[in-house]
Amino acid sequence: MTEHTYPILDKVNVPSDFRAFSIPELKALADDVRTFLIDVISTTGGHLGAGLGSVELTVALHHVFNTPHDKLVWDVGHQAYPHKILTGRKDRLNTIRQYKGLSGFLKRTESEYDTFGAGHASTAISAALGMVAARDFNHEDYKVVAIVGDGSMTGGMVYEGMNNAGILKKNLIVVLNDNNMSIAPNVWALSNYFTQLIANPSYNRFKANMYELTGKLDAWGDRLRRVAARLEEGVKVVITPGMLFEALGFRYFGPINGHNMSQLVSIFSDVKNYPGPILVHVTTQKGKGYKPAEADVQRLHGVTPFDKVTGRSPKKADGPPAYTKVFGKAVVELAKQNPRLVGITAAMPDGTGLDQLQKELPDRFYDVGIAEQHGITFAAGLATQGCVPVAAIYSTFLQRAFDQIIHDVALQHLHVVFALDRGGLVGADGPTHHGVFDLSYLRLIPEMVIMAPKDESELRDMLYTAVEYKQGPIALRYPRGNGIGVPLKQGFDLIPIGKGEVLRSGKDVAIVCIGAIVQNALKAAEYLEKSGIRAEVVNMRFVKPVDADLLKDVASRFDHIVTIEDNSIVGGFGSAVVECYAQLGITNIKIKVHGIPDHFIDHGTPDELHRDVMLDAQGIAHVVNEFLQQHATVLRQPLRASVN
Amino acid sequence: MTEHTYPILDKVNVPSDFRAFSIPELKALADDVRTFLIDVISTTGGHLGAGLGSVELTVALHHVFNTPHDKLVWDVGHQAYPHKILTGRKDRLNTIRQYKGLSGFLKRTESEYDTFGAGHASTAISAALGMVAARDFNHEDYKVVAIVGDGSMTGGMVYEGMNNAGILKKNLIVVLNDNNMSIAPNVWALSNYFTQLIANPSYNRFKANMYELTGKLDAWGDRLRRVAARLEEGVKVVITPGMLFEALGFRYFGPINGHNMSQLVSIFSDVKNYPGPILVHVTTQKGKGYKPAEADVQRLHGVTPFDKVTGRSPKKADGPPAYTKVFGKAVVELAKQNPRLVGITAAMPDGTGLDQLQKELPDRFYDVGIAEQHGITFAAGLATQGCVPVAAIYSTFLQRAFDQIIHDVALQHLHVVFALDRGGLVGADGPTHHGVFDLSYLRLIPEMVIMAPKDESELRDMLYTAVEYKQGPIALRYPRGNGIGVPLKQGFDLIPIGKGEVLRSGKDVAIVCIGAIVQNALKAAEYLEKSGIRAEVVNMRFVKPVDADLLKDVASRFDHIVTIEDNSIVGGFGSAVVECYAQLGITNIKIKVHGIPDHFIDHGTPDELHRDVMLDAQGIAHVVNEFLQQHATVLRQPLRASVN
Repeated sequence: MTEHTYPILDKVNVPSDFRAFSIPELKALADDVRTFLIDVISTTGGHLGAGLGSVELTVALHHVFNTPHDKLVWDVGHQAYPHKILTGRKDRLNTIRQYKGLSGFLKRTESEYDTFGAGHASTAISAALGMVAARDFNHEDYKVVAIVGDGSMTGGMVYEGMNNAGILKKNLIVVLNDNNMSIAPNVWALSNYFTQLIANPSYNRFKANMYELTGKLDAWGDRLRRVAARLEEGVKVVITPGMLFEALGFRYFGPINGHNMSQLVSIFSDVKNYPGPILVHVTTQKGKGYKPAEADVQRLHGVTPFDKVTGRSPKKADGPPAYTKVFGKAVVELAKQNPRLVGITAAMPDGTGLDQLQKELPDRFYDVGIAEQHGITFAAGLATQGCVPVAAIYSTFLQRAFDQIIHDVALQHLHVVFALDRGGLVGADGPTHHGVFDLSYLRLIPEMVIMAPKDESELRDMLYTAVEYKQGPIALRYPRGNGIGVPLKQGFDLIPIGKGEVLRSGKDVAIVCIGAIVQNALKAAEYLEKSGIRAEVVNMRFVKPVDADLLKDVASRFDHIVTIEDNSIVGGFGSAVVECYAQLGITNIKIKVHGIPDHFIDHGTPDELHRDVMLDAQGIAHVVNEFLQQHATVLRQPLRASVN
Repeated sequence: MTEHTYPILDKVNVPSDFRAFSIPELKALADDVRTFLIDVISTTGGHLGAGLGSVELTVALHHVFNTPHDKLVWDVGHQAYPHKILTGRKDRLNTIRQYKGLSGFLKRTESEYDTFGAGHASTAISAALGMVAARDFNHEDYKVVAIVGDGSMTGGMVYEGMNNAGILKKNLIVVLNDNNMSIAPNVWALSNYFTQLIANPSYNRFKANMYELTGKLDAWGDRLRRVAARLEEGVKVVITPGMLFEALGFRYFGPINGHNMSQLVSIFSDVKNYPGPILVHVTTQKGKGYKPAEADVQRLHGVTPFDKVTGRSPKKADGPPAYTKVFGKAVVELAKQNPRLVGITAAMPDGTGLDQLQKELPDRFYDVGIAEQHGITFAAGLATQGCVPVAAIYSTFLQRAFDQIIHDVALQHLHVVFALDRGGLVGADGPTHHGVFDLSYLRLIPEMVIMAPKDESELRDMLYTAVEYKQGPIALRYPRGNGIGVPLKQGFDLIPIGKGEVLRSGKDVAIVCIGAIVQNALKAAEYLEKSGIRAEVVNMRFVKPVDADLLKDVASRFDHIVTIEDNSIVGGFGSAVVECYAQLGITNIKIKVHGIPDHFIDHGTPDELHRDVMLDAQGIAHVVNEFLQQHATVLRQPLRASVN
């Protein structure tokens, strides 16, 4: 695979193997880890930049702290690839993010060194503080270190956790891994502040001047020294880049060069035994040591396999455009038509496709940082003044704003458009990122309208419908990945609220479905046809309000109905269908609710995962077939649906 | 009603009536507002302390700013009673928090002066920033002022909002109404910092000393002045209590005495036209001007009617203990038995009953502040180390931690006990506070076990069951208000997970229900009995896992089933029942799902609201009766449930 050798890394499997290393040995180890990381990720793909930035930091932490007895809590997992390499998993790094392989994030079941799993940002300080409280409570003596990237610092949870830590005054170390480059830059106000203050000569020369001055002033020396001492005492706690942290009750150390091994080892050895909450501010460079990654941090944040020398990935075969791209383009078109439309993202301009709006109409675009709660209430504020906010947030991350959707948007009947990207099983990011709860958690909210398009053309019309809706909150959710290649017409059509459509007529069974998974249902119907089963396929389009007339019609024609969704079977689309039939008083029909089972799904490609949960075309065909078999006796004495 | 007159307030209906007032007139108006507030609230009950503290602030804001053209955004609503009095609603203040009366919080549909509604904390800055963005976008010129209490400052949303405001640099004024007394004290680290710094002589004498010194030093004057100037420039932005806010990009002004009218008018007049984000720090005294409220801020935060002179409420008639009290006592008993049990509240020690734990075992108790997100992930951290955290949070506030329950607790199979107080309709606090979504939003989470007790004795057993469960997340939810007075036995019994019970046998219809509303169903069965309808009443105890065996048995004996819950009919308990029957392939039964309808419910007493939504005993009887009538034709040709 690779021409490199890793002489030091070869001797290291777990942290105890390098706890006695000298600084030069640790440096050599770090070099090996970096080379190994590039070698492996270039062939497998994965998150590269953050890991390259945290190599020295990781080596130093595992060297100084007695892991796993001492506990490292990594915020999110992008920065933790070196941690995986150094904690017994280097031989499996080539399986990262692959089906049955290593997780791309921390995972408690994967290693005792992974003390707390995370895929969503800003949780580490809270979790670490819980461990610290448990430790003191149980009279144990381990250290707890939370390592938080600067991107995560825009999340309110960090502040909640630090505030509580400052109150509790327990021994806790927080490492701020500041690469000044969260997923998207310029969303953290404090980083501007850091930059200014660190560059400020007053700050740097403050102490030197003061002492120089007082030493030279013989006549006034005593008095001045007293004043100076008082001044310094008052000033020293605040005039550092760490003032925010000091105000919250943390002792601040830094900034430390995060690529200088001896500085890192020295500071961690020092603070290890300090009492109370400590913040160590480490500056690192994303992509460090790998030219292509240093040069293009955004592109090499998460990567597909690439050429090690150039940093380029092989060009993808042309295919249908991704849902995300179609969405991003449609937003721009609609924004040009509708001067009140505003786009909002939470640190994901590229991921959501809103980067197109950002480029073309920058004053109509807001990136609020990793701050979904604020983002949604900000949207609500915009809506009160007649703007039409389109909040484009991944399905899984919008969970963070669940209360704000209810309390700030829906309760006030505000017209906010929720565009949930990454609905359904997302693939390699795994259980922390699957968007399989949104249809359920949005459906329980009064006033909410929920749509899911069957293809990228319907996505455009649904977005248009949502923007024109005006009466309250309205959501559309669509998956990661490519559309199906349907032609995209000019302009947009309104879709009647709450109206579905029959896509394929049948006689034996109705497959009633929602969203992009409709395509798999259509293919399933073809398979079933071959077995002599004529399946009708219904695209419901709306989870809420569900099309009761259409369901009534379906029940009048079919004894057997299978609902299909790439959302949990609990409380989601299928649940809406069975609730609706109960409400209509329609019995005598057999309904099978099929979707994501009620447990967490691991990572893998969407195809692999769909196969596992029987949501690929063959799986759906199998489920339908089995459902019909199961009721074969019933079929022989046909039931008639009774419609009241 | 009262012997007081309000000579100035009588002449004031809306803010334009006092915009031309002099300072002495404004003071007199404030005095009238305060007297009026005490007079009215002493007869009606409501939130008193916060409003008394914000009288001058409110008068000054409406005097200086051109409301409603300029927009005031109040965080939560406790502090906003004077705002209601001064914006056309004084004549209806005596209806506050009553059925069909004024809301206890801000409400957009109630007044054009209520620019944004809120019952949950920490939302105002985000909403205000949204308005500001819309204003600039639409080229309008109004001012936007968010008024945030210090209690709300522990919520991460405040930080997210301020951070984003600091980045956007738009004209926005935030007033920090600091009464140093949130709902429970000592949860905001920064308030300690404020107190220390304001009391610090170095801070106060800093400038004076510097100038005195440089003036007297002739020989060294020039050089020293240069150093001093440089020092001062570097220092001045940070050595203020506002350093946090300055770091986040706000200009800080304060602290201002919030009861000094001329200072308030002066500062607001000044900052009104300053560009960029401004923070005005106003210190106020909760209960100001009313001795009993000043003396006991906790007790007079929210009050029932009371004697104006003594501040005492008439002693309540002895009744059964509140669910909250029973819970609080049971936690203490269990904590004494189980050395790993730890209690967590988010700024609600009294409201959740955890104050009993706080008093008896203070080292087993954590108040994390208004920071539900952190609180739950903190609990997850505790659970990783073998502690058994019992997180007691109101049903409505736990919505804030929805993502953390999924991502940090359930996904990692951690044993956290969720005790949701205020489940169901809470009464006077209204739609922002009703706990009517919890059964739905918890049910969609894999791994989650959800219970709701029928009475206070079952609450004890369920809490015990939850603490002993160990396998993962487990929740119990119970209502506001008193239990039914069942005897509380010594000790606890385990309840088998997922097992319900038949409380009353019947023949004509099965009422399948969950939680405290079971009591209303039992009474409904008595009413029905009188009409000759023999209703079976089933207490399911568990929403998840739902007792499929019991449901199968019920379906084998009844053609008609009504589910009852004081939770939304969407995705909740009834939905679990219909899903279960669909999964079991049981048809030929008629099911009516009855619960909170799918829209937001206003405020009123729980009895009034239950009557409105037909969840009182008579309402349930009526619903059951009507359901049976509707299917009377079917009844005459009895159906048999087919159980596969």
